[in-house]
Amino acid sequence: MAVYTDVSDEELEEFIASYDVGALTSFKGIAEGVENSNYLVNTESGRYILTLYEKRVRREDLPYFLGLMQHLVARGISCPLPVKDRSGRTLRELAGRPAALITFLDGLWVRRPNMEHCHALGDALAHLHLAGADFPMFRANDLSLPGWGALGKDIGAGADEVVPGLAAEITKELAFLEQNWPSDLPDGVIHADLFPDNVFFLGDKVSGLIDFYFACNDALAYDVAVCLNAWCFESDGGFNVTKARALLQAYEGVRPLSEAELKSLPLLARGAALRFLLTRTYDWLNTDENALVRFKDPNEYLRKLRFHQRVKSYRDYGLGKH
Amino acid sequence: MAVYTDVSDEELEEFIASYDVGALTSFKGIAEGVENSNYLVNTESGRYILTLYEKRVRREDLPYFLGLMQHLVARGISCPLPVKDRSGRTLRELAGRPAALITFLDGLWVRRPNMEHCHALGDALAHLHLAGADFPMFRANDLSLPGWGALGKDIGAGADEVVPGLAAEITKELAFLEQNWPSDLPDGVIHADLFPDNVFFLGDKVSGLIDFYFACNDALAYDVAVCLNAWCFESDGGFNVTKARALLQAYEGVRPLSEAELKSLPLLARGAALRFLLTRTYDWLNTDENALVRFKDPNEYLRKLRFHQRVKSYRDYGLGKH
Repeated sequence: MAVYTDVSDEELEEFIASYDVGALTSFKGIAEGVENSNYLVNTESGRYILTLYEKRVRREDLPYFLGLMQHLVARGISCPLPVKDRSGRTLRELAGRPAALITFLDGLWVRRPNMEHCHALGDALAHLHLAGADFPMFRANDLSLPGWGALGKDIGAGADEVVPGLAAEITKELAFLEQNWPSDLPDGVIHADLFPDNVFFLGDKVSGLIDFYFACNDALAYDVAVCLNAWCFESDGGFNVTKARALLQAYEGVRPLSEAELKSLPLLARGAALRFLLTRTYDWLNTDENALVRFKDPNEYLRKLRFHQRVKSYRDYGLGKH
Repeated sequence: MAVYTDVSDEELEEFIASYDVGALTSFKGIAEGVENSNYLVNTESGRYILTLYEKRVRREDLPYFLGLMQHLVARGISCPLPVKDRSGRTLRELAGRPAALITFLDGLWVRRPNMEHCHALGDALAHLHLAGADFPMFRANDLSLPGWGALGKDIGAGADEVVPGLAAEITKELAFLEQNWPSDLPDGVIHADLFPDNVFFLGDKVSGLIDFYFACNDALAYDVAVCLNAWCFESDGGFNVTKARALLQAYEGVRPLSEAELKSLPLLARGAALRFLLTRTYDWLNTDENALVRFKDPNEYLRKLRFHQRVKSYRDYGLGKH
């Protein structure tokens, strides 16, 4: 929960007046999202989200993120649409930060996804991958292997403050993944952070996908692996294979996975678990005590990593048909 | 900024279904308000705020607060209206907290009020006082003299950690106010916390008053004194007598102040400054380092207190006509 940057009355008024959206009727900080400052903006013409991009988002990446959302909306994906100002720009500046006004999406994120939600998510993810296929821009995944190695170095022995022995475990896993990471899987635009709080539902139907600020070009199946981690474990740490099957079958109903992708799935899932273990450990160790954000427990992803290390085959994720 | 209590999907769905407001379409935590957890709730029928009352609000006071808002709306004051559930109740429970669904008010609070805003505020405050005159319930002001004495004792020598010498200054001021506090001024329902973030504007017009969770029965002129403190000082600490005059003249245009009220104004303003100095000092000393809230600087109200101590007459607040 966070609003990091305050916006003055004058700045806000001038900013909104530069769009063709009518006069402001309401402006409230939203207590969601860890990376950026988000405001709910109501105007005479409707509801919008104003995002001020804070330090974790690089300014030079914003044209990719904003362009991707425009591309996806044009292809029928329900995601926030960056609104153009009177000069046709979507990327602006406000209160010294890069800023964008985007459309508000109806829907609720699901605190405890059930099997139907996982099915709907798998379907939505595959449609996202198809819709992104002809997006012309490219952004490397800076949170893949090289990024993990750098994060692991930054964390160093500090990891043992979080869990005794974690530093060695990270080193070993990094070495294993560096040896075995696949390089020839089908790639394209991935969301890379499609956790339940980034997927809106109305009833059992996905009403929208949000938060494209980790999107990049990488193996499509890696995105599936992120979702297996984020959607298919119970809060007690148990892996729910029924939810995994629902997710994967729905995905394959739209975009079938190749044999190579399927075989790589346990490895990709280890990588995805390590990625969140690393960033959570880093945040845990580098959060000053006055932070407005409560960071999440790295242990959750350590347990998930250990689960995937024991997985023998993609069949353990519930796919029996291949 | 704060959302202290998480609400599960099932609890929320069941809660909203018990109102005649249609299905949920959106649910977002709001990063405003220090005392309670607030959520923006969109349903098929409109926009609402869901408030979960946290520890600072006493459950037994809620019927007063909710009843007052209903009373004021019925008398034409624009303030949030507690929505009745299908059984006619406004005070409910959710996630183990007292909770209420209230209507959403359009408007923006003004970060830097100008003279016109102060004028509009004075007018709105006087109308609020008139509308509250026949509200039948009673709640003592627990943040008046006896409450300040108790707070001063709780803070004790710790005040000197905030500003050297502050403990003695508080003791002396408390003794002075106990000797001189007026007891026979016109009383009624006061808001008691009408800071700029509790007053919404659309353009130069007040569109609504919010946050009645300090409302109580006390001297009406004390409410005016709170507003002089909250609206008429510049960010550099200077008192803007033009804004004060605008506020007071607008107030008197609706409800003229008696000679006794006017004469008491400097004293009431000292009391109001001390009240916020005490609560801010207390919060400053008692906030654990993991708090999600950044508390405000007590020094601001120490400077205001010292200003009012030097005031000779209500004429120093810009009223020349008496």
